[in-house]
Amino acid sequence: LGKFKDKVKNIGKETKQIGKDDTRRIIHSAKVGLALTLVSLFYYFEPLYDGFGQAGMWAVLTVVVVFEFSVGGTLSKCINRGWATLLGGALGIGAEYLAELTGKTGEPIMLGFFVFILAMGSTFARFFPNLKRRYDYGLLIFILTFSLVTVSGYRVDEIIELAHQRLSTIIIGAATCIIISVLICPVWAGQDLHNLVASNIEKLASFLEGFGDEYFSLAQGEVNVVNASKEGKSFLQAYKSVLGSKASEETLANAAWWEPGHGRFRFRHPWNQYLKVGALTRQCAYHIETLVTSYINLKKQAPTEFQRIIQEPCTTMSSESAALLRELSSSIITMTHPTSSVVEIHIHNIKSAMDDLKNILKTSNNKSNLLEIIPILAVGSILIDIIICIEKVSEAVHELSNM
Amino acid sequence: LGKFKDKVKNIGKETKQIGKDDTRRIIHSAKVGLALTLVSLFYYFEPLYDGFGQAGMWAVLTVVVVFEFSVGGTLSKCINRGWATLLGGALGIGAEYLAELTGKTGEPIMLGFFVFILAMGSTFARFFPNLKRRYDYGLLIFILTFSLVTVSGYRVDEIIELAHQRLSTIIIGAATCIIISVLICPVWAGQDLHNLVASNIEKLASFLEGFGDEYFSLAQGEVNVVNASKEGKSFLQAYKSVLGSKASEETLANAAWWEPGHGRFRFRHPWNQYLKVGALTRQCAYHIETLVTSYINLKKQAPTEFQRIIQEPCTTMSSESAALLRELSSSIITMTHPTSSVVEIHIHNIKSAMDDLKNILKTSNNKSNLLEIIPILAVGSILIDIIICIEKVSEAVHELSNM
Repeated sequence: LGKFKDKVKNIGKETKQIGKDDTRRIIHSAKVGLALTLVSLFYYFEPLYDGFGQAGMWAVLTVVVVFEFSVGGTLSKCINRGWATLLGGALGIGAEYLAELTGKTGEPIMLGFFVFILAMGSTFARFFPNLKRRYDYGLLIFILTFSLVTVSGYRVDEIIELAHQRLSTIIIGAATCIIISVLICPVWAGQDLHNLVASNIEKLASFLEGFGDEYFSLAQGEVNVVNASKEGKSFLQAYKSVLGSKASEETLANAAWWEPGHGRFRFRHPWNQYLKVGALTRQCAYHIETLVTSYINLKKQAPTEFQRIIQEPCTTMSSESAALLRELSSSIITMTHPTSSVVEIHIHNIKSAMDDLKNILKTSNNKSNLLEIIPILAVGSILIDIIICIEKVSEAVHELSNM
Repeated sequence: LGKFKDKVKNIGKETKQIGKDDTRRIIHSAKVGLALTLVSLFYYFEPLYDGFGQAGMWAVLTVVVVFEFSVGGTLSKCINRGWATLLGGALGIGAEYLAELTGKTGEPIMLGFFVFILAMGSTFARFFPNLKRRYDYGLLIFILTFSLVTVSGYRVDEIIELAHQRLSTIIIGAATCIIISVLICPVWAGQDLHNLVASNIEKLASFLEGFGDEYFSLAQGEVNVVNASKEGKSFLQAYKSVLGSKASEETLANAAWWEPGHGRFRFRHPWNQYLKVGALTRQCAYHIETLVTSYINLKKQAPTEFQRIIQEPCTTMSSESAALLRELSSSIITMTHPTSSVVEIHIHNIKSAMDDLKNILKTSNNKSNLLEIIPILAVGSILIDIIICIEKVSEAVHELSNM
C-alpha cells in the first residue's frame, strides 16, 4: 500500500511538473475537451440525421484526429483532410462508375484492382520526403476515402447524397477545431520556432559566458572545486539540448508553413532561414561539445605558466563571443536588425583578442614541453573554430533580418 | 510543354531512386494494397451485415491507419487500438448508464461533462513522455471511442450489440494487417535498429580510415587536391548522418519494444543498450565534426617539419581506432563478443602510438613557433579525445554482447 501511495505521489508530481513546464498544455487539453463536447452535443441534439450513426460520428472523429497542439498543425490536418476527402471521393465515384459498366461478375474484380493500385500508389507516395513533410496525413485519408467509397456497394447517386452529408459534417468538425484553436490562447508553431532558435543561441551565449568566468578562475589558480561543479552543472548542461534540436525545429517549421500571418509574422514567413540559423547554431554546439572535453582534460592538470599567459585573450574571446551571441539572439526576438555598432564592437574585440593570442603564440619562448600545453592549445584552437561558426550564425541572422 | 516533360522525368527519377534506396518500400506498398483489397472485398461479399455502412467501414479504416512500415509499428498500433476501444467502450457504456439515471434533462449535461473531462484528461496524458512514447495512439482512440459511445444516443443494450459487431470488425482488420505484415517479407524494427547502430559505427570507422590515409599523404607533401576533394567527399560526408540519427534510433527502439522474438532477437531484447551505444557513437561523431574543422585549417598551411614528425603516431592512432571500430561493428552484426585478442591488439597499438606521440611532444625541440603548429596539435588533441570516446563505445558494445 505504501508503494502504491508513493506511485500516486510521483504521478502527481510529474503531472504538476508537465503542466508547469508549459501551461499551454493544460489550456490545450481544455480546448480539445471543449471542441469535442460542442460537436458531440450539437449532433446529440440535431434531429436532422438518423440519430448519430452516420453523420455525427464523422464530426467527432474529425475533431479527435485533427486537433493538434499548434494552429499550424491543426490547419495542416484540416486542409489535408479536406482535399483528400474530396479527391478520394471523386475518384472513388469514378471507379465505381467504371466498375458498374463491366457488369455483375466483372465489378468486384475491377473494384479490387482499383483499390489495390491506388492504395499501393499512395502508400509509396508517402515515402517521398517532400510529400511526407506536408501531405502525409492527406495521402492516408485519400486511400481511406477512396476505399470506403468504391467498396461501399452503393449506387453512384446514393454516394453523392452521402458524400454531401459527410463533407458538411467534416467541415463542421474542422471549423470547430480551427476556430477554437485560433481564438482561445492560440499556440503558433511559427512563434515557437522563433523562440526556440533564439533561445538556442542564448544557451550557447550562456555557455561561453560561464566558460569565460570558469576559465579565468582556473588560470588564477583559485579553482573552487565545489563551486565549479555546481556552476558547471548549469552552464555545462544547458547547451546540450541544442545538439538534438533538429527534429523539433523541423516539426515546428513544417507546421508554421501552414499558418496565416499572425502577430509580427506574415504568411510564408522565411521559416527556412530559421532552420538555417538553427543548423549553424547546432554546428557551434558540436564544437562546444569538443571544447568541454578538452576543458575537462585541462582541469586535470595543474595550471602552467603558459596557461596564465594565454588565458586573457581566450577569456576575452569567450566572453565577447557570448556578448555577440546575446545581441544576435535579442535581435531575433525583437525582429530587428542586429545593432551594427554593437556587433562591430564585439567583432573588433574578438579579432583583437585573437590577434593577441596569435602574437603570444608566435613569439612565445615556451619553456614547458608541448605535452603540458597541448590541452590549453586545443582549447584555444577550438575556441577559434567556434568563433568562425559564430560568424556564420551572425551572417545568417543578418540575412534573416533582411527578409 | 518542355518544362512539364522535364518535371515528369524528374519525378520518374526520384521514384526510381526511392525504390532503389530501399526495395522494401515497394514491397510494403504492395502489402498495404493487398491487405486493403482483401478486407474490402471480404466485406463487399459479406452478406451478414447491412451492406457496408457500419461494419466493413471499420475494418477498412483499421487497415488504413494501422498498417505501418515495421512489424513493431503495426503491432503497437493494433494493440493500442484494441485496449483503447475496449476501455473507451466500457467507460462509455458506464457513462451512458449513469447519465440515463439522471433523467431526460440531466442526461445531455452529464454526457457533455463526461466527454469534456475524459477528453481533457487523455489529451493531457499524451504530454507524459512515457505515455507518449508507447500509448499515444491508444489515448487518441480511447477519447474517440468514449465520445462515440456516450453521445451515440443509443440505449445500453443496443450499444453492447453494436460494440460486439464493431470489435469483431476491428479484430479482422487488425489480424489481416498483422498476418500480412509478419508473413510477407517482414520489416523488423529491431533488425533495423541493430543494423543502424552497427552501420553508424562502421561510418565512423570509414572516416577515421580515410582520415589516416589523407593525413599521411598530406604530411608526405603529395597533396593531390583533385584526388583529396574527390575522396574527401565520400569519407568526409558519410559520418554526418550519424550526427542526426537520434530521432530515428528512438523511433526504431520504440517500435522494436513491441516485437516478439524474431531471428536472433528475443522478445524484450536489450534495445535500450542499442540506444546507449548509439548515443556514445554520436558523441564520437560530434568530436569528429570538430576534427574536420581543425583538419581543414591544417590543409590551408604548408606542411611543417614538426607535422612530419608527429604524423606517424597520429596516422597509426587513426587507422588503428578505425580497425577497432570495425571489429566492434562486426561483433554487433554477428551478435558475438568482440574478439578480445583482436581488440587487445588494436588497443595496444593505439596506446603505444599515443605514447609515441606523447614522447615526441615531451622531448620535441620545437623550432617553429606555436602559431604554426597549433592546427596540428589541435588535430592530435582531438584525436586523443576521440579515442577516449571510442573506448566508451567499446565498453558499451561489450555490455551489449553480454546481455
